[in-house]
Amino acid sequence: MEISVYIATSLDGFIARKDGSLDWLPGSDGSDDGSGEDYGYGEFMAGIDVLIMGRNTFEMVRSFGTWPYGELRVAVLSSTLGSLPEELPDNVVRMSGLPRDIREMLAADGCRHAYLDGGKAIQAFLDAGLVNRLILTRVPVLLGEGIPLFGPLAGDLKLQHIKTLSFENGFVQSHYHCL
Amino acid sequence: MEISVYIATSLDGFIARKDGSLDWLPGSDGSDDGSGEDYGYGEFMAGIDVLIMGRNTFEMVRSFGTWPYGELRVAVLSSTLGSLPEELPDNVVRMSGLPRDIREMLAADGCRHAYLDGGKAIQAFLDAGLVNRLILTRVPVLLGEGIPLFGPLAGDLKLQHIKTLSFENGFVQSHYHCL
Repeated sequence: MEISVYIATSLDGFIARKDGSLDWLPGSDGSDDGSGEDYGYGEFMAGIDVLIMGRNTFEMVRSFGTWPYGELRVAVLSSTLGSLPEELPDNVVRMSGLPRDIREMLAADGCRHAYLDGGKAIQAFLDAGLVNRLILTRVPVLLGEGIPLFGPLAGDLKLQHIKTLSFENGFVQSHYHCL
Repeated sequence: MEISVYIATSLDGFIARKDGSLDWLPGSDGSDDGSGEDYGYGEFMAGIDVLIMGRNTFEMVRSFGTWPYGELRVAVLSSTLGSLPEELPDNVVRMSGLPRDIREMLAADGCRHAYLDGGKAIQAFLDAGLVNRLILTRVPVLLGEGIPLFGPLAGDLKLQHIKTLSFENGFVQSHYHCL
């Protein structure tokens, strides 16, 4: 099973303000930014058969109201969360364990390509050497503080640059393979 | 006077390891990386008439042995450093003060375009709203820890993306104007 990260950060590397706010990220509230551009999200999601997300990301997505992932299988990582709310689709499940265990369980269940979301989850999988692809979109703003995308690692992690795309609104999206 | 930053960081935003080491940055030891590519450094430097650097960057440059900036005017920012070593060219001077004072003194002295180097100095000038251009080269490696390029800010700082260049070795260089 391949694991990919697709995420936007400020130029100083934050995925959200300290309070989780995404007001600095155009389009994060679901509004159309008028560009007709989806920054490759649709194409990326078309190849995904499971979304792995951390607890904080789950709570944030829940706060938006409508569950946005339809029939896509979703694994919510949490060791403390009880049962999931009943109104969620049956394909949303709670999982806990080490990144390699999560990966093995999903692969054994037939998953081929996972989308990994959420700062702490991404950091844990990167540190375990379990992220295969990183698609990073840089928003042209410095926030000064917030929730960082990257965190401590056991050692250097080298990447292979695949391509970089620039968009009219100033977004710069780089695609990497983890080596 | 325009102030520009031209700097390389790891993908997780570090300009050096905690001990100042640049071993992760190809070519930082002055060796030729064989690409024949200077990543725009020569063209950038051709338009610069003063280099402003922080104390730590000064010490690091000194540790390389030969002073690499020839006749270029250099302002070393430090409030604690005594006189500069005598073997340095006369065009290397020590300055102290707030970023806006430094900027005014150099502009009054006829400087038109400054190259600002060093983590703390860059953070101080960014926070004072005194950086005009940011040329940021991302090296495809995650270090996990180190000396960060960016730091706290009084508020959001919006940037205008000008262009992004990708190089064969995986470097991705983005040019921004600060708004």
